[in-house]
Amino acid sequence: MSGVYPYTFKKLIETISQLPGLGEKSATRISFFLLSKPELCEILGELIKELPYKVKLCKFCRNLSEEEICSICKDEKRNSELLCIVENPVSLSYIEETGVFNGYYFVLHYLLSPKDGIGPKELGLDHMLYLIKLRNIREIIIALSPTLSGEATTSYILEVLKDYPVKVTKIACGIPMGMEIQFVDPLTLKKALFGREILKEK
Amino acid sequence: MSGVYPYTFKKLIETISQLPGLGEKSATRISFFLLSKPELCEILGELIKELPYKVKLCKFCRNLSEEEICSICKDEKRNSELLCIVENPVSLSYIEETGVFNGYYFVLHYLLSPKDGIGPKELGLDHMLYLIKLRNIREIIIALSPTLSGEATTSYILEVLKDYPVKVTKIACGIPMGMEIQFVDPLTLKKALFGREILKEK
Repeated sequence: MSGVYPYTFKKLIETISQLPGLGEKSATRISFFLLSKPELCEILGELIKELPYKVKLCKFCRNLSEEEICSICKDEKRNSELLCIVENPVSLSYIEETGVFNGYYFVLHYLLSPKDGIGPKELGLDHMLYLIKLRNIREIIIALSPTLSGEATTSYILEVLKDYPVKVTKIACGIPMGMEIQFVDPLTLKKALFGREILKEK
Repeated sequence: MSGVYPYTFKKLIETISQLPGLGEKSATRISFFLLSKPELCEILGELIKELPYKVKLCKFCRNLSEEEICSICKDEKRNSELLCIVENPVSLSYIEETGVFNGYYFVLHYLLSPKDGIGPKELGLDHMLYLIKLRNIREIIIALSPTLSGEATTSYILEVLKDYPVKVTKIACGIPMGMEIQFVDPLTLKKALFGREILKEK
């Protein structure tokens, strides 16, 4: 279909098609849109080119940062006894959005997944142990998705921490707010029963 | 949601969100993907930046071209008696793909649409008349979408050409191949009846 377009244009369509969620049709549509917006091309092209040079990982939490230490790790008003383990910067931003956590983070960037070649080494838990000492952490909150990889990773982190004098918790698994019980899968309902909350003690 | 991302990353998400068909979620996903592919950033960033400088319109047909005259207009083996009027380079490429047309093209880039401020001037039909003389065109094939704007534009082109010694045709409107008649809208069926093909003369 793109046989008659000039080389640069074809190459642009092909390259945009490599981005996640975009096929040849949407890539073509985006390319024509860009062709009609020279100023946007200048801005977007520059942003994409400089991305790998500008955005790095924070040397403490490994969240995205343009400086050596990110704004969260620099914030001394946070509770330095709490460390929340998240899979990636997206999870981190969702947790920040809730506004109820004011400790520090540690970003794994991977979950254990032998089939994808992700073993314990890829998690970089030595760095987590370093942070625990550095910040005098008392509680580790594991906030990973309750998936197979997430649960395996949680177990592994627990194993690594077994001789460390820190409390380890994980975020609750249960029925999403507003959902009717009849639509919840049996496994979630089971977790919700085990993790039941005390409303009145005797 | 993107409150905790570093400036460049946030800016990238915002800018990608401006592209057609992409919202904040897909823009975020694409931005993370790019972050993991520094070589792709270099290639894609450069392609987007150079796009407005490299891809221009052919001085004859006004199709996209990296040279002053596009490869189709340069091709002297084509039938110089036929000129096909298309709305845009996408239509042109679809027609080329059919492999049944070997004349030249003229790309309008617009269809008449008073509400969008597109009047006769925007169509640039003077340039079409220039091509008709230059190439000694005998037949103009109008290949515009059978929409309101497409039909209005077709009528206007016909009006402009009324005193020119050229045959003017437009591509057939009818039932798409493989579609059952019961699913065709009445207007299309009406057009298909009017435009019926002779299978046997008497």
